[in-house]
Amino acid sequence: MTVAPPVIEKLRDIVGEQRVLTDDSAFQQYGVDRTTIWQPAPGVVVLPETTEQVQEVVQLANAEKLAVVPSGGRTGLSGGAVALNGEIVIALDRMNKVIDFNAVDRSVTVQAGMITQQLQEFAEQQGLFYPVDFASTGSSQIGGNIATNAGGIKVIRYGMTRDWVLGLKVVDGSGNILELNHGLVKNNTGLDFRHLFIGSEGTLGIITEATLGLAKPPKELSVLVLGVSDIPSIIDVLKVFNDGMDLTAFEFFTHNGMERVVDHSEVPTPFESEAPCYALLEFEQTSEAELDRAMELFETCVMEGWVLDGVISQSLTQAENLWKLREDMSETLSQWKPYKNDISVNVSRMPEFIARAEALVSEQYPDFEVVWYGHIGDGNLHLNILKPDELSIDDFTVRCSGVSKQIGALVEEFHGSVSAEHGVGLLKKDLLSYSRSAAEVALMQQVKKVFDPNGIMNPGKVVDAI
Amino acid sequence: MTVAPPVIEKLRDIVGEQRVLTDDSAFQQYGVDRTTIWQPAPGVVVLPETTEQVQEVVQLANAEKLAVVPSGGRTGLSGGAVALNGEIVIALDRMNKVIDFNAVDRSVTVQAGMITQQLQEFAEQQGLFYPVDFASTGSSQIGGNIATNAGGIKVIRYGMTRDWVLGLKVVDGSGNILELNHGLVKNNTGLDFRHLFIGSEGTLGIITEATLGLAKPPKELSVLVLGVSDIPSIIDVLKVFNDGMDLTAFEFFTHNGMERVVDHSEVPTPFESEAPCYALLEFEQTSEAELDRAMELFETCVMEGWVLDGVISQSLTQAENLWKLREDMSETLSQWKPYKNDISVNVSRMPEFIARAEALVSEQYPDFEVVWYGHIGDGNLHLNILKPDELSIDDFTVRCSGVSKQIGALVEEFHGSVSAEHGVGLLKKDLLSYSRSAAEVALMQQVKKVFDPNGIMNPGKVVDAI
Repeated sequence: MTVAPPVIEKLRDIVGEQRVLTDDSAFQQYGVDRTTIWQPAPGVVVLPETTEQVQEVVQLANAEKLAVVPSGGRTGLSGGAVALNGEIVIALDRMNKVIDFNAVDRSVTVQAGMITQQLQEFAEQQGLFYPVDFASTGSSQIGGNIATNAGGIKVIRYGMTRDWVLGLKVVDGSGNILELNHGLVKNNTGLDFRHLFIGSEGTLGIITEATLGLAKPPKELSVLVLGVSDIPSIIDVLKVFNDGMDLTAFEFFTHNGMERVVDHSEVPTPFESEAPCYALLEFEQTSEAELDRAMELFETCVMEGWVLDGVISQSLTQAENLWKLREDMSETLSQWKPYKNDISVNVSRMPEFIARAEALVSEQYPDFEVVWYGHIGDGNLHLNILKPDELSIDDFTVRCSGVSKQIGALVEEFHGSVSAEHGVGLLKKDLLSYSRSAAEVALMQQVKKVFDPNGIMNPGKVVDAI
Repeated sequence: MTVAPPVIEKLRDIVGEQRVLTDDSAFQQYGVDRTTIWQPAPGVVVLPETTEQVQEVVQLANAEKLAVVPSGGRTGLSGGAVALNGEIVIALDRMNKVIDFNAVDRSVTVQAGMITQQLQEFAEQQGLFYPVDFASTGSSQIGGNIATNAGGIKVIRYGMTRDWVLGLKVVDGSGNILELNHGLVKNNTGLDFRHLFIGSEGTLGIITEATLGLAKPPKELSVLVLGVSDIPSIIDVLKVFNDGMDLTAFEFFTHNGMERVVDHSEVPTPFESEAPCYALLEFEQTSEAELDRAMELFETCVMEGWVLDGVISQSLTQAENLWKLREDMSETLSQWKPYKNDISVNVSRMPEFIARAEALVSEQYPDFEVVWYGHIGDGNLHLNILKPDELSIDDFTVRCSGVSKQIGALVEEFHGSVSAEHGVGLLKKDLLSYSRSAAEVALMQQVKKVFDPNGIMNPGKVVDAI
């Protein structure tokens, strides 16, 4: 499918000659996310600068019955920003300005194309803190974060992106500009559509501006890495530390994952001895007493036999190095072309769930190596199946989607989520029914139709249009 | 309108003979909330015990095209639970059990009819804390709190009810049972209908169960009451304390309000001197240093001329007495039959807004006395107009609705909310357009139709069915 020349002309009238791209390199750049499964094939890429330009493009798309794919930082892992069928890609890259900041309200209003890291830096310059943090903050955009309700490594303390959105400006699928919640703390005036757009993955409309809350910066952060005797013990360790102090992070990874990170990078092992798995904890060192408290809790865990060894950061550099053991995991593993699962269950059920999932994978797929890591303090696991060298990528993918369905059925049994933080996009559509009932899926389709009557917004993502 | 005898029979089959009430005293009890404007006239009251019974009643209502009004603790202030036209009132009073508690997840699942205070006490017994708190917790029910996204006095620290809802079980207007989010911390699988039901005021369906997060209990709380030189200075005081420490509450009230509370009750004045208005602050006294810090900030505010006098609680009793100055306000004023406004703007714009609103009321309605109080740390003000003795209640109501529209227009100019925490119900419908655009209202009506195709759920509340 291509976009007809007169439409291209109209797009140029809206956003300007230079901001309409039709060459293949633009399609390869703007028409895809971090997934590598699909070959992008949009019809045109436009780079608007204002909400009004986005509105005009959406109105034109409605008139011409052309599909639209919103494109943010393209760091998604579920194909939510992939354009496959001659769509108009609306890339937010040029909408990256701070519109307003208010120190009393501790809020900032930005255009949706602002890079997450830029927002973090802006907050820091104001003596404040934007706490949603994850590996791809250097490329991901705020609008995309909101459209996928991004999580990351500080959720245990600060929640998801959803918890920081005070207001949104969006262009819905009909071309209406909606200003949702105006940055207010309290506003009980009927249905809160702000929360409907958060996590909607571009299927209802395009987020063009956001008002975000900012936090006070944390005090000095200490990082603790513990060697843990087995996966169930990790949950015991979590309970002890969670009850005894306030954590800002609680992550985990298995030994085979850490080994690869250490081999692959300059990061030293945390300590001499080897453990089956590791917990990474972070807390604010508000006082000397807090450090003593952490040591006490550590000793409790050692006495119980849950923890085998441990190290605490003595400097910022050491803290950063310890974090790298966890943060470099995804990139390190990418050379094994891992098949990723991003699942969650209630934290309390995690030991039982992991035991069941491990048994399932090792029985059914004994030739597969699995690396587990994730935000275990939030009940969120990334199960990564590494491709055996001898298996072709196609065969591997086919076999893994078999695993995914079995894992999906297990997630369903545990009332868990088949996509804890990566969203559904194209990649998880087949798995959606394991987490959402048929009635819910039908309601999603109908609600999409309300906001996007012609079904032009990011078609084929999450659910099919009706 | 009445409900036909065969339908009453069917309702008896569903919920049991004793749980179907048709007498006038039941109608007076279950068919209304705290508003006193409307005369309730439901057709029948049913008291189900299970989600399945609620589902059967809703299915019957659909078959018979009868309207349904969900009824919780009936403490609402906007008429959201008023039944005026022969509706089936579904009162959740008998659905008041704890279903599950999990210490690791720090979550509790309860039926929707549980009284808020019972939940608070249950949490306390587990060494935990349910932090949403307001004057009517002794009667209000969790389901109603969620349906109106209740706020209250701890929002500055703990957020609204919305922030504590991990999962919902609901019966939608079609009679589907939906289990939304299953108590998960992370779940990005498409549109999050949990957040659509929060604050929906019974217009999409009936909440029957909720999974709520619980917090760690706060340490010893200190209360500080400050005499402040004028309303704009309150925002300066807020900024100083908010930046300098972590507050759990920041409330305010004017002198004429406090005077009435002191006259009406046994509560002593906080200090000898008189100030135009007062701020009430609360914070966790985590250490002696925190108390010193509060004293320093107090002195800064005195030096700046913002604060005239102040007192800090030296005991739990004194803290409770200081809180009464604020918490007894609503009940004390009720003898003046006040016309209540529940508005919010961004905190930073509050001084300008209050000045404009004060000018408006005193110019247009010089014979009206106004008491201001509210959750000023969240930008939420309760503007109470007291009825002059010589004016009849009817004339007073007519004149006040004139004020409300002018206040509404001012709220719109400030991009604020005409209902910060009380909801829209019947009372604020005429004001909705000051906070929500015509496009948003039309979308609300269409989304209602998706969940409630026959328009039987709480008809006439918030928006009209289409």
